[in-house]
Amino acid sequence: MADNDDRNPLESLGKAAKDASRAMAGLSAAAKNDLLLTLADALESRADGILQANRLDLEAAAGMSESLRDRLALNEERLAAIAEDVRAVRALPDPVGEVLDGRLLDSGLSLMRRRVPLGVVAAIYEARPNVTVDVTALCLKTGNAVILRGGKETVHSNAALVKVIQSALEDSGLPPAAVQAIVSTDRALVTALLHLDAYVDMLIPRGGAGLHRRCREESRIPVITGGIGVCHIVVGKSANLDKALDVVENAKIQRPSACNAVETLLVHEDVAAAFLPRLAERLQRFNAVLHADERALPFFGTTLAGTIVPVNPGDYDKEWLTRDLNVRVAGSLSEALEHIRRHGTAHSEAILTEDMAEADRFVREVDAAAVFVNASTRFTDGGQFGLGAEVAISTQKLHARGPMGLDALTTYKWIGTGDYVIRA
Amino acid sequence: MADNDDRNPLESLGKAAKDASRAMAGLSAAAKNDLLLTLADALESRADGILQANRLDLEAAAGMSESLRDRLALNEERLAAIAEDVRAVRALPDPVGEVLDGRLLDSGLSLMRRRVPLGVVAAIYEARPNVTVDVTALCLKTGNAVILRGGKETVHSNAALVKVIQSALEDSGLPPAAVQAIVSTDRALVTALLHLDAYVDMLIPRGGAGLHRRCREESRIPVITGGIGVCHIVVGKSANLDKALDVVENAKIQRPSACNAVETLLVHEDVAAAFLPRLAERLQRFNAVLHADERALPFFGTTLAGTIVPVNPGDYDKEWLTRDLNVRVAGSLSEALEHIRRHGTAHSEAILTEDMAEADRFVREVDAAAVFVNASTRFTDGGQFGLGAEVAISTQKLHARGPMGLDALTTYKWIGTGDYVIRA
Repeated sequence: MADNDDRNPLESLGKAAKDASRAMAGLSAAAKNDLLLTLADALESRADGILQANRLDLEAAAGMSESLRDRLALNEERLAAIAEDVRAVRALPDPVGEVLDGRLLDSGLSLMRRRVPLGVVAAIYEARPNVTVDVTALCLKTGNAVILRGGKETVHSNAALVKVIQSALEDSGLPPAAVQAIVSTDRALVTALLHLDAYVDMLIPRGGAGLHRRCREESRIPVITGGIGVCHIVVGKSANLDKALDVVENAKIQRPSACNAVETLLVHEDVAAAFLPRLAERLQRFNAVLHADERALPFFGTTLAGTIVPVNPGDYDKEWLTRDLNVRVAGSLSEALEHIRRHGTAHSEAILTEDMAEADRFVREVDAAAVFVNASTRFTDGGQFGLGAEVAISTQKLHARGPMGLDALTTYKWIGTGDYVIRA
Repeated sequence: MADNDDRNPLESLGKAAKDASRAMAGLSAAAKNDLLLTLADALESRADGILQANRLDLEAAAGMSESLRDRLALNEERLAAIAEDVRAVRALPDPVGEVLDGRLLDSGLSLMRRRVPLGVVAAIYEARPNVTVDVTALCLKTGNAVILRGGKETVHSNAALVKVIQSALEDSGLPPAAVQAIVSTDRALVTALLHLDAYVDMLIPRGGAGLHRRCREESRIPVITGGIGVCHIVVGKSANLDKALDVVENAKIQRPSACNAVETLLVHEDVAAAFLPRLAERLQRFNAVLHADERALPFFGTTLAGTIVPVNPGDYDKEWLTRDLNVRVAGSLSEALEHIRRHGTAHSEAILTEDMAEADRFVREVDAAAVFVNASTRFTDGGQFGLGAEVAISTQKLHARGPMGLDALTTYKWIGTGDYVIRA
């Protein structure tokens, strides 16, 4: 099974993670919860050192964008919130050990599937120090070891956080290698990590489309891609337009930077005249910009020149992540479905309609992680779906689809017992 | 999401498969069963053409090994058995459409997970024409389209079989592109297939370790690796040795060429003197060859010189697939577990013991798809496990582990409905 990747610079780190994963897999739920409590407390009691390291990152990021610096910045309050999140993960039920199913077979074999940790999880993510703790807590809760590779802008913060995490592990009598970070900014190490399939069981990339594509192309480790959301809302000809306005506002305005925010509206031509002027009026309140196709443009008149612009063809494939919204008029549901097929990212798609047959067809034909009828795309979220926690949102189809809860950090083992039974 | 792999020579084949998968996904269980019946009947009524094509393959394989030619060969009887297997798949329950779970959330969103087909499945496999029909039946039953790439020695047989399959699809009013075969022997097309992630949702390689490694390294499609079984049986010091002999005989002799056959026996030193001579006596009846380590050798004496040979270190990593068996004496369970850790392929591992604590530790610590206590490793099989069918045996941890039944050819979709509900 082993690759002859003898000179992988992460070889010893990978091996240490695999060894540590064995100790973690054997822990009781109580032991894991004690560890998480120790960690949460340590994040607060050792705040000074963490914030000092964070200031080094912030100084180095002086010339960077405000939004990046904001994601990067920690303070007492944010650190307390991060610790509180660890305590929330602690309070969740432990999925490990659950028996998924089983039966006594005619052969005399008593068979069951037991849920077990994956082993070693690797995460590659953006410059957000809170993700370091977040992913750590979820992996420890499920008895996994983890290898972290955060954005290069967070090297000092992550080094400090991982030091605190490793102390918590040591204080609990556990191997510190259960949580390791690659803090070097050497990009070649990402390739080395992607080739560490001898030790790593699952890779979760969190970031832009480029990172996901690179992982899909280069990774020898099974990878969960996702998180890119070019989401659509179809406004059917029978939709309740008053309520539709509320849903579209929610899906676009509540948090435009989220992957489950809507990027393109597909409005049936029969209701375009009634709906589009009201849409413009509603979203104008939030300084939204509507990118309208040539069939939609005439319905807006000329009064809103600044906030209505003609759509460019490439816009349909853009994840705006801003208060921009593509608006296209569709002559039929088939036309809307074809648009989603061509431009969707299999994340979250919604239809607003009073027509049951139309709703049924939409649910059947749209191939996405989450499909909604008369609901906002913003619901695609581990917390909203009642999973308690969210590891990532998968837009691929294997292992996990859509919001991934703690279960997605586990696999199962077939266990067969008998009285020296043999196969006939 | 699409890769700019514009010049992929399989582009149009992939696109056709994806388009066809949409028609297949919408089929009722009854329609899929009708299709499978049509296919089974056609395999029998059109036997002449299939057998004629098969003779061309057999002629071309004149110089090849007897076992390859045997796997390659079809006749009336084998074709009838293949058709019967299709009817057996038809009789299985359809997993598509099952609601996995659901709940009414506080937000007013009614949420459920519905099982849906994966979409397009690709399979790369050895020179066995029966696999062409087998994989096809499983994929059609679950509403998937499939792209087949069988061994180059079966090009004529596969072309003839796929022609019959595509006729059955057409006769049922379904797109023939739901089942396509790459019948060219151009090896570059395998790389092209591995890069067809814009259209293919899952890749199943069936073959040797080299193929699995290549897929892990080059595939951009999520791949299910597995099927390589260096399986162990640990004979604990408390084992019932009479019964242990039966289990070892079953695991090694019943079908040595199967991936779930045992390759290495780890015998506790306390029972080595009592067990090993009897083991040699028993397996000698079947002309087995024991590859003994230096601690095991003395127990065999010199009377069985021909069938007992010293083990070579590399033998522990070999999947013999023959009547060869490595035999090693272990001083403790820990030593046996360490051996499995180093040489196992995470397929199937067994312990024979009367000691409950030992059994419990083995089940917990061995990281494999299937772990057995007092049972033969030969049980790791979709049929034996009651899954009705077997797509492959996965030795990785994501999506499916161990024998993969029809469920493994499906994913799920989150479906949320409400009265124009928005996220608070």
